[in-house]
Amino acid sequence: MEFLQQQIQKYGKIVSKDIVKVDSFLNHQLQPKIIEKIADEFIGEFSKYNPTKILTIEASGIAIAMVMGIKTGLPVVFAKKKKPVTLSGECYSSNIYSYTKKETNSIVVSKEFIQKGDRVIIVDDFLAMGSAVLGLIDIVEQGEGEVVGIGIAVEKGFQKGGELLREKGYNLKSLAIIEKIEGDKIFFRN
Amino acid sequence: MEFLQQQIQKYGKIVSKDIVKVDSFLNHQLQPKIIEKIADEFIGEFSKYNPTKILTIEASGIAIAMVMGIKTGLPVVFAKKKKPVTLSGECYSSNIYSYTKKETNSIVVSKEFIQKGDRVIIVDDFLAMGSAVLGLIDIVEQGEGEVVGIGIAVEKGFQKGGELLREKGYNLKSLAIIEKIEGDKIFFRN
Repeated sequence: MEFLQQQIQKYGKIVSKDIVKVDSFLNHQLQPKIIEKIADEFIGEFSKYNPTKILTIEASGIAIAMVMGIKTGLPVVFAKKKKPVTLSGECYSSNIYSYTKKETNSIVVSKEFIQKGDRVIIVDDFLAMGSAVLGLIDIVEQGEGEVVGIGIAVEKGFQKGGELLREKGYNLKSLAIIEKIEGDKIFFRN
Repeated sequence: MEFLQQQIQKYGKIVSKDIVKVDSFLNHQLQPKIIEKIADEFIGEFSKYNPTKILTIEASGIAIAMVMGIKTGLPVVFAKKKKPVTLSGECYSSNIYSYTKKETNSIVVSKEFIQKGDRVIIVDDFLAMGSAVLGLIDIVEQGEGEVVGIGIAVEKGFQKGGELLREKGYNLKSLAIIEKIEGDKIFFRN
């Protein structure tokens, strides 16, 4: 998606050779026109698989997922990073390792919200090593649902998550894949 | 908003005399039709104040705020509960006390995203003691912005947040105000 590459080139801030900040439109401030285009792309890509649900993880993924929900009518579920006091029922959980924070955390989804036969689109803003997405896939599979597509706004192509998911045969759509960051330049995969 | 009261009566799960879970449509699973109606109410209520920005806090508030953003074109900003590694620039921060978790945490917003003259709508899913909203107000005021309205889906009328905000003169709109929970019954304020 050319459009998203342009936004990243224009508004992204290079922090290091591994990190581009897209705080101004994707994961701190949210620019509606950009979020809407991202959501539209995923809907166009995955509607044909008859999804029944959209799954994401707090926090930024909720914005994209919710816009998809509004446009398709599909319920949105977001995995929680901590089990809240009020989540008293039974949950699916999966351990994910955060490479930025260097710690393992579990993510949880109430068993009520992933059910046998659910056809799930997973969406998130970023894909790096793939931990969060693998955790979400694990949860869908625990619930005997099926992952029919994975929509990612920005994939870091120089980290292993995308490769891993494609090798496993998942239907992964990343709208912008950053190949490398060199100095003040961002290079995308075509 | 009668509609939201009905949803809470129908789908809310009473956990204790202080807590109703609305996990199935508002803060774990998100039901698009309900979120959209909530967003529409807030737009109807606050558009006349010429807002320039919508501010919320991760995570559930993002869903409502983003739908408002899509419909109005206004940028959405969500405060973060932890300062992420990538948030390297200067931030406004405010300490908020969580009565459920019994701990004080700071919330942060990058200084870039609240600017002098901003006319801000604050939205969140729940209002209880008001800590989160007071933290968000504090951040807007640090940035020399103005809070033109506060939209809350569910207010716990038996806790102090709503009263406090109204006394301070804020333009607070709560769509459903729970007056009390007794046994298996939820009573709303008219």
